[in-house]
Amino acid sequence: MPRFFLSGGSNVAGGTALIAGEDAKHVKVLRLRIGDRLILCDGKGTDYHCSVTRMSGESVECEVFESKPCIAEPSVKVQILVGLPKGDKAETIIQKCVESGADEIWFFPSERCVMKLRAGTEDKKLERFQKIAEEAAKQSGRGIIPRVGLLKDIAEAFNRANATDLPLFMYETGERQTLREAVESAENIRTAAIITGPEGGFEPFEAELARRVGLRICSMGPRIFRCETAPVAALSALMYATGNMD
Amino acid sequence: MPRFFLSGGSNVAGGTALIAGEDAKHVKVLRLRIGDRLILCDGKGTDYHCSVTRMSGESVECEVFESKPCIAEPSVKVQILVGLPKGDKAETIIQKCVESGADEIWFFPSERCVMKLRAGTEDKKLERFQKIAEEAAKQSGRGIIPRVGLLKDIAEAFNRANATDLPLFMYETGERQTLREAVESAENIRTAAIITGPEGGFEPFEAELARRVGLRICSMGPRIFRCETAPVAALSALMYATGNMD
Repeated sequence: MPRFFLSGGSNVAGGTALIAGEDAKHVKVLRLRIGDRLILCDGKGTDYHCSVTRMSGESVECEVFESKPCIAEPSVKVQILVGLPKGDKAETIIQKCVESGADEIWFFPSERCVMKLRAGTEDKKLERFQKIAEEAAKQSGRGIIPRVGLLKDIAEAFNRANATDLPLFMYETGERQTLREAVESAENIRTAAIITGPEGGFEPFEAELARRVGLRICSMGPRIFRCETAPVAALSALMYATGNMD
Repeated sequence: MPRFFLSGGSNVAGGTALIAGEDAKHVKVLRLRIGDRLILCDGKGTDYHCSVTRMSGESVECEVFESKPCIAEPSVKVQILVGLPKGDKAETIIQKCVESGADEIWFFPSERCVMKLRAGTEDKKLERFQKIAEEAAKQSGRGIIPRVGLLKDIAEAFNRANATDLPLFMYETGERQTLREAVESAENIRTAAIITGPEGGFEPFEAELARRVGLRICSMGPRIFRCETAPVAALSALMYATGNMD
């Protein structure tokens, strides 16, 4: 069923929803007609199931026949934290991680990052990132639009991760837990973080820092993942492990 | 460490490996020198750990100091079977699924496939697909180069799946098992298959056929995946579930 997030101009009051602005244009692009059903999501986890009752030049009126929590939101809020990769890999990561259930996605500069953001281009980039997250959220039936952001440095990423119940730092060598050990040793996981590197991975001193600040240094098994595959594979495994693919 | 699959002209005999042809060129591109270490893999799961002893115009000679099974091969051989998608999505699927541990990857035409292969272009396409699998296998440290192929029809895909211990047909609606239920109900899983659809998913009659021939109709949870994300997410979950990300 077509799915919209309430945005500028659209609102739900009582049993009626008014769709305006870009959303209304989108309803028309989809050639919806009176009587057709759609879902309006408030972006905070609630879905309004509606049917179209009236279409005017600028807006679309709907009758809300049911409102209920969006079933697609996982029980664990997972932050994806990635060393900023080159080219369109960040966009791939956003799209795939939103589909796979990420709650927030953050990129940060790390030692081996080749990609540098030029001053003044950040806002434009973020706007594009957020748009990709919104599209992916619509398509995959999410109840929220995951927030996408840029962090100043790796320390910020570590701090964000450390504020969760299960802060995972994915690393390729040395002394590590398996993802299973990490998940099974944590109780009542409501929030988690998955940190992965840019193309060249992390420097040993970054992994050492992660260990010192208390992150769980974690293996993804014997195969080496590309930087744009690692977050999706880890997130899928974590979703499975926490019962969020059931 | 640089990793090569033995191919035309290269061979290992006794304690010596001779790298020739394209492989030898690749060694030179990587600027390896005498004394540098590399891994030669026979593509059947055995790794030869070598050091370069001699470089001539056309070939590279190495001393083999250890041969052992490649640790990256999963205990479960998983076939990925996908309704042929448009554009470069097939290539994305190949790359990501090889990294994630797939044993073979097959594409088949299904009812909602938009992509049609033009007669005469198949060989070229397959050659390209196989090259992507090889590159991904090298990069991710695999012990085999997963085979990529095209199937005639969905029935062929179903037959392939049915010959495995755990034939999974991923579907979005109706009566389904969870992936967990499917995995936990099977014993001693040595082989498995994951079937996913093209952009528009499967037609109900295709799912009904899958059910009738005995495939396990399976859910991937409440979120809808894009056709190029679904195989990777399902494979990652299956690898985790069977202890192959430990």
